[in-house]
Amino acid sequence: MAAPSSNTCGAMERSIRERVPPLLTDLYQFTMAYAYWRTGRHQEPAVFELFFRDNPFGGGFSLFAGLHDCLLFLRSFRLTDQDVEFLRSVLPPDTDPAFFQFLRGLDCSGVTLRSVPEGTVVFARVPLMEVSGPLAVVQLLETSLLCLVNYASLVCSNAARFRLAAGPKRKLLEMGLRRAQGPDGGLTASRYTYIGGFDFSSNVQAGFLFGIPVAGTMAHSYITSFTSLEEVWPQTLVAVNGEKDPVDIISLTKGWLSRVCELLGAEPGKISEGELASFLSYAIAYPQNFLPVIDSYSVACSGLLNFCAVALALCELGYRPVGVRLDSGDLCRQRAFLPFPLMFCASSFQENAIDVVGVGTHLVTCTQQPSLGCVYKLVEVRGKPKMKISEDPEKSTVPGRKAVYRLVDAEGHPFLDLVCLAAESPPEVGGSLNCYPLRCDDSCISVIPAHVACLRQDVFTRGQVRTARGCSKVEMSRPVAVS
Amino acid sequence: MAAPSSNTCGAMERSIRERVPPLLTDLYQFTMAYAYWRTGRHQEPAVFELFFRDNPFGGGFSLFAGLHDCLLFLRSFRLTDQDVEFLRSVLPPDTDPAFFQFLRGLDCSGVTLRSVPEGTVVFARVPLMEVSGPLAVVQLLETSLLCLVNYASLVCSNAARFRLAAGPKRKLLEMGLRRAQGPDGGLTASRYTYIGGFDFSSNVQAGFLFGIPVAGTMAHSYITSFTSLEEVWPQTLVAVNGEKDPVDIISLTKGWLSRVCELLGAEPGKISEGELASFLSYAIAYPQNFLPVIDSYSVACSGLLNFCAVALALCELGYRPVGVRLDSGDLCRQRAFLPFPLMFCASSFQENAIDVVGVGTHLVTCTQQPSLGCVYKLVEVRGKPKMKISEDPEKSTVPGRKAVYRLVDAEGHPFLDLVCLAAESPPEVGGSLNCYPLRCDDSCISVIPAHVACLRQDVFTRGQVRTARGCSKVEMSRPVAVS
Repeated sequence: MAAPSSNTCGAMERSIRERVPPLLTDLYQFTMAYAYWRTGRHQEPAVFELFFRDNPFGGGFSLFAGLHDCLLFLRSFRLTDQDVEFLRSVLPPDTDPAFFQFLRGLDCSGVTLRSVPEGTVVFARVPLMEVSGPLAVVQLLETSLLCLVNYASLVCSNAARFRLAAGPKRKLLEMGLRRAQGPDGGLTASRYTYIGGFDFSSNVQAGFLFGIPVAGTMAHSYITSFTSLEEVWPQTLVAVNGEKDPVDIISLTKGWLSRVCELLGAEPGKISEGELASFLSYAIAYPQNFLPVIDSYSVACSGLLNFCAVALALCELGYRPVGVRLDSGDLCRQRAFLPFPLMFCASSFQENAIDVVGVGTHLVTCTQQPSLGCVYKLVEVRGKPKMKISEDPEKSTVPGRKAVYRLVDAEGHPFLDLVCLAAESPPEVGGSLNCYPLRCDDSCISVIPAHVACLRQDVFTRGQVRTARGCSKVEMSRPVAVS
Repeated sequence: MAAPSSNTCGAMERSIRERVPPLLTDLYQFTMAYAYWRTGRHQEPAVFELFFRDNPFGGGFSLFAGLHDCLLFLRSFRLTDQDVEFLRSVLPPDTDPAFFQFLRGLDCSGVTLRSVPEGTVVFARVPLMEVSGPLAVVQLLETSLLCLVNYASLVCSNAARFRLAAGPKRKLLEMGLRRAQGPDGGLTASRYTYIGGFDFSSNVQAGFLFGIPVAGTMAHSYITSFTSLEEVWPQTLVAVNGEKDPVDIISLTKGWLSRVCELLGAEPGKISEGELASFLSYAIAYPQNFLPVIDSYSVACSGLLNFCAVALALCELGYRPVGVRLDSGDLCRQRAFLPFPLMFCASSFQENAIDVVGVGTHLVTCTQQPSLGCVYKLVEVRGKPKMKISEDPEKSTVPGRKAVYRLVDAEGHPFLDLVCLAAESPPEVGGSLNCYPLRCDDSCISVIPAHVACLRQDVFTRGQVRTARGCSKVEMSRPVAVS
């Protein structure tokens, strides 16, 4: 994977101001900020926690993602004159003009963020981010941080579930851009499905910005645009290691096609000449990368026969066809056609396995659950714990600033994430610890950790990004374990 | 609604290059473009159609949206040196270097777009857009156009369904930014739910960019940040039309609270002082806009009592409280608390109706169906009709360039969208017309239109935007009828 260039880093920093300007937030953040300011409480030190209440997709885990964008957002958070003038036009006319001066001077120099690292396996109700700073400022950050974390974590987790289902060997290609929820939804999906375990994306911009490997061959429109072999040009191809004289690839392919039809008892009259022309044109353009889509007309009566003929002609010239693509229809039924002819085609078809699976709509839009419900809750002001009480006990918040530890057993396996008050002493390695599993009716269990790690790190301290990470190096790394 | 300024127009044009650069597409568009170019077919005149196969949400219609962004995209479509260099790095090394020169010079000066207008009620399988131009160029546009139309139309249609369910009078507020699929997903949702029939958005940037009315009051965090009445400052308020001497609003409210508790038999000990302090602070900051969220603790035992006390104090000073907000829990149960006390509060509570409904996650992520399946199919090359045949007859395409007419009856009601070949003569007004409804097994019906309208317009002709529309005037207008 190519590392993103520093130009790209600059572009990402600039682009966050375009993608997530400070006004991309709910109006009530500003109305509350004014009420805090009016009563003189805007500078009071406050702490918010970001967490979700249920693992997505009815599953047992989530991957946390979106941190890198959050850091860029915090670093660039500043209201322009134009922003402030717009706010003046939408807040009530009796709003004190001095408030707008205050807004103009705002930034995140007083804000500190502790966060789980990008790509970490995380669980419901564990505070993933702790945002502390002046009350009015950390309040204003709510919507933007939630927006940046919610979808990134959701689609990253979805990708991890596809990876678990596909097993470790099969390659996974994200190809959902056209069905994504907007252009940025598509780009965000490409970025975070890669972190979640995908191998490639069809999205060229994702390759350009984030160094994600890109892949793609052809659509049905390419196939159907051809009508006859007369459209094929040039009509020759030079053998890989042989003579310099170009070979008439059309005649060669026609010969192979007759033999294939004979061998398989196929009817030449049902074969699409336009499809053969499209395969040949593609093979001449990309002799080393021949991987046509074979279901534009009929896999059994045309696509497969044309593929075999072109592939065998390429083989004769020393090239190695890559494979075929099935795009629609009943995949199981279509696969049934493949075993025999592919045996003599290309070694990559051993066992007739599906090597690469492309996933689009369901992956990027997360059809099963298209949103993650991260929330951002106030837990402390001026050192005093804060709590929201709800008729639904699940929606009541746990007051006070927390510490979060990941407990690891002697074999190195994490087995418990421990949430306790920041003021409590950390769990001792080797010591017995009583804790209360969430949603288990106050039943207490006793555990002995062999190793204890702080799950969250200081990543942004009073306006400064703390980690000495590159532009997106840490961010683009895959999670260590998905289990 | 404020019209967007011309500065905003420029910003939108610049921003489309940032949001939808030419590389934000599938790699196979470029591999196909090379194969077309290599065989000398890249300039052949070609026609693609954009349509969806099924109305979303199991419904009977969709709203078409995203056109304005498509026009900006087409106008700005140009590959930079950096883009082309990136493509050189990902295409096979034996790609002819002259192809990259060709890419560098590409634009949409040869492209023509016929389209249904923004916000039109449309139906499945009707070609909504027709994109014609040089084969390689119109192929390259596929993914971006689909991405811009799919989500915009989906979320616009979803909004229209909420509007139909809510009836014409109730106000609808979009507030889904935090749960949207990325920042742009949130902004796109705000923009197109407004076209779909919503009245406000919580999204400030949507107000800034598109002139959409914004609304919002406060979150639970604002309420829970307060502990005691000592935090309220200033502690006085001036009456609307009365004396200039400020009134001690805290004492006034305390008096009203006692009376409210007495009247309702409520226990003063269960009332949250912090909540009362937060209401008072907000009322002092926004005496004309008092609309607190009353379910941070308990609606019946605290929130409603505090609201009544502050609202009555405001009334005494000549202000008119706006209402209350219920944010979570069992809405029906909570509403049951409202009738009695609100009768003497504010006239806007007549009949205790819910005046405004805010919708977030389900609206913006379109939970019921989070993607619209618009496709982009080749129908003609060099004047010859083109078709994709599929094992699934629904996925086979209808070849040839089409005309689309909306037939209207004598009362002015549209009753049929007619798709026919462009070469056929248009239906005659008052004449009997035989046509074959889709999915009706070749049964023929006969209709007599009183008026015939072309459903699509030439909006982009050989590189030029045709309509003399303002920046987003046409775009932001609501559909005429949703039925």
